[in-house]
Amino acid sequence: MEMSQLLHVFYIIAIVAEGMTAALAAGRRNMDWVGVYLLGCITALGGGSVRDVLLGRHPLTWVEHPSYLLITGGAALATIAIARYMHHLRRLFLFLDAIGLVVFTVIGCTIAMTMNMPVIIVIASGMITGCVGGVLRDILCADVPLLFRAELYATASIVTGVLYVLGEWLALPHDGVIIAAMLVGLALRLLALRFGWGMPKFVYTKDLH
Amino acid sequence: MEMSQLLHVFYIIAIVAEGMTAALAAGRRNMDWVGVYLLGCITALGGGSVRDVLLGRHPLTWVEHPSYLLITGGAALATIAIARYMHHLRRLFLFLDAIGLVVFTVIGCTIAMTMNMPVIIVIASGMITGCVGGVLRDILCADVPLLFRAELYATASIVTGVLYVLGEWLALPHDGVIIAAMLVGLALRLLALRFGWGMPKFVYTKDLH
Amino acid sequence: MEMSQLLHVFYIIAIVAEGMTAALAAGRRNMDWVGVYLLGCITALGGGSVRDVLLGRHPLTWVEHPSYLLITGGAALATIAIARYMHHLRRLFLFLDAIGLVVFTVIGCTIAMTMNMPVIIVIASGMITGCVGGVLRDILCADVPLLFRAELYATASIVTGVLYVLGEWLALPHDGVIIAAMLVGLALRLLALRFGWGMPKFVYTKDLH
Repeated sequence: MEMSQLLHVFYIIAIVAEGMTAALAAGRRNMDWVGVYLLGCITALGGGSVRDVLLGRHPLTWVEHPSYLLITGGAALATIAIARYMHHLRRLFLFLDAIGLVVFTVIGCTIAMTMNMPVIIVIASGMITGCVGGVLRDILCADVPLLFRAELYATASIVTGVLYVLGEWLALPHDGVIIAAMLVGLALRLLALRFGWGMPKFVYTKDLH
Repeated sequence: MEMSQLLHVFYIIAIVAEGMTAALAAGRRNMDWVGVYLLGCITALGGGSVRDVLLGRHPLTWVEHPSYLLITGGAALATIAIARYMHHLRRLFLFLDAIGLVVFTVIGCTIAMTMNMPVIIVIASGMITGCVGGVLRDILCADVPLLFRAELYATASIVTGVLYVLGEWLALPHDGVIIAAMLVGLALRLLALRFGWGMPKFVYTKDLH
Repeated sequence: MEMSQLLHVFYIIAIVAEGMTAALAAGRRNMDWVGVYLLGCITALGGGSVRDVLLGRHPLTWVEHPSYLLITGGAALATIAIARYMHHLRRLFLFLDAIGLVVFTVIGCTIAMTMNMPVIIVIASGMITGCVGGVLRDILCADVPLLFRAELYATASIVTGVLYVLGEWLALPHDGVIIAAMLVGLALRLLALRFGWGMPKFVYTKDLH
């Protein structure tokens, strides 16, 4: 199996996992089934959509592959049935979510590279693809986005992107670079979850206005 | 009067109604007059804008017809003057809002059909056009969007879109299909309001993270 | 120095100032350093990005000039170090923020004029450029956007845009028009801050739904 095919398989796993975690967030807000479906689609496909809108790249992934709307929304709905067992699967989900983060990141970086974007935009494209879906989920739940406070979530995405760009710049073997970048990003995120690592926080209590 | 003209008349009624309900939401958040104006425009025109941005379709409706910014914002401002009587008009407004929902939906579906989009995208385009304005209003008021919890709001939009697509696929008379799809969607929404119908809710209290 | 160069200098000052005020908002929400960086970029560059996405104008400013992501994010990070002294600089920051508002507005209007947009869209483009960054900042902090309630913030932007459009329509000298429009908008905002001027508020306490 080629790398692009492998990435595609991981991509499908990732959007399913994102749709399912979105369903749990929807359940905590007592949303109805339609809300669960929609939040699943938005969370799983929102990062890529925002990336494509910002880069002016059409059609969007789900416009070209409408079945993704069925897969992600369906995964979210299925989660309602199995939610009572989800607690036991907590670690599996955090693992799949971390897989999704690095797979989304690599896909976003690749797309920006294909468009001959500068390095900073390549890394930004990876991070937007990896992280914005979760931000949209949190905004729609009226929460302060976890991204801005979570255990090395954006950081793992940035590290993955930087390693990918660096490896390509050094002209190292393409597939090896992608695998290494994803493994390091994945390890960083999982270790951060395990040991509660986080970036330092900035606490400011005075009011500017 | 032709169907496209009739839809246009309904469209103007709908954006006026959406601007006015947005004004009430702004008033509940003690926004100033400028905020009322802006929230009116965003609520009434935001759904179509998000649709066009996602489908890569330019210029946006209000960029091509700037007067819509005056109509919707003006309707929002006018609402301030008559707000004290609005309570008596509650039913009228819920009715106009429901009209807007199905009119926006049919317009959004038609636009996607004209772009030869696949069926799922046609229905999604209708739903985005019909529902996203209200979602933006709720986000800007820092609320959890009503869409995800309200009485068959998104559902009525989806049903309208599905009937429209189905009728076109069966090659039934165009005007009849549009009218039937809108009437069924409207009836569904109004009955849901009247009897408090809603989709089942998903209530999940455990924390994944 | 020509007007376009002067505006560019002011633009850099403005995005730095916006990045720094975003950092303080991030600190009040206890965001981590990555969150501070990202919120700085989004606040400083979000207005122009939304404008370009709505007008269908690509590439976005920061995609063309990726260094802006380093400048604004860097300014946000630097703010962490000097936050303890920021309170004394409160007035300077409100001043720089007001400078940013009118500079962003003029740039947004100019871009829409170059695209031969109608007058209302030119003014809207200026206001979106000037105000949307702060709205995104507030949404990501799960606040009701200040824009909709603050001292003549959007109003100062609209006044600047209207004067700019009016001066161009009267064929007055280009540079003089820009300077006059910015000075009046700036004065309006600063006076509003000084004396607590605001647009009348719309207070509505009944629930429509």
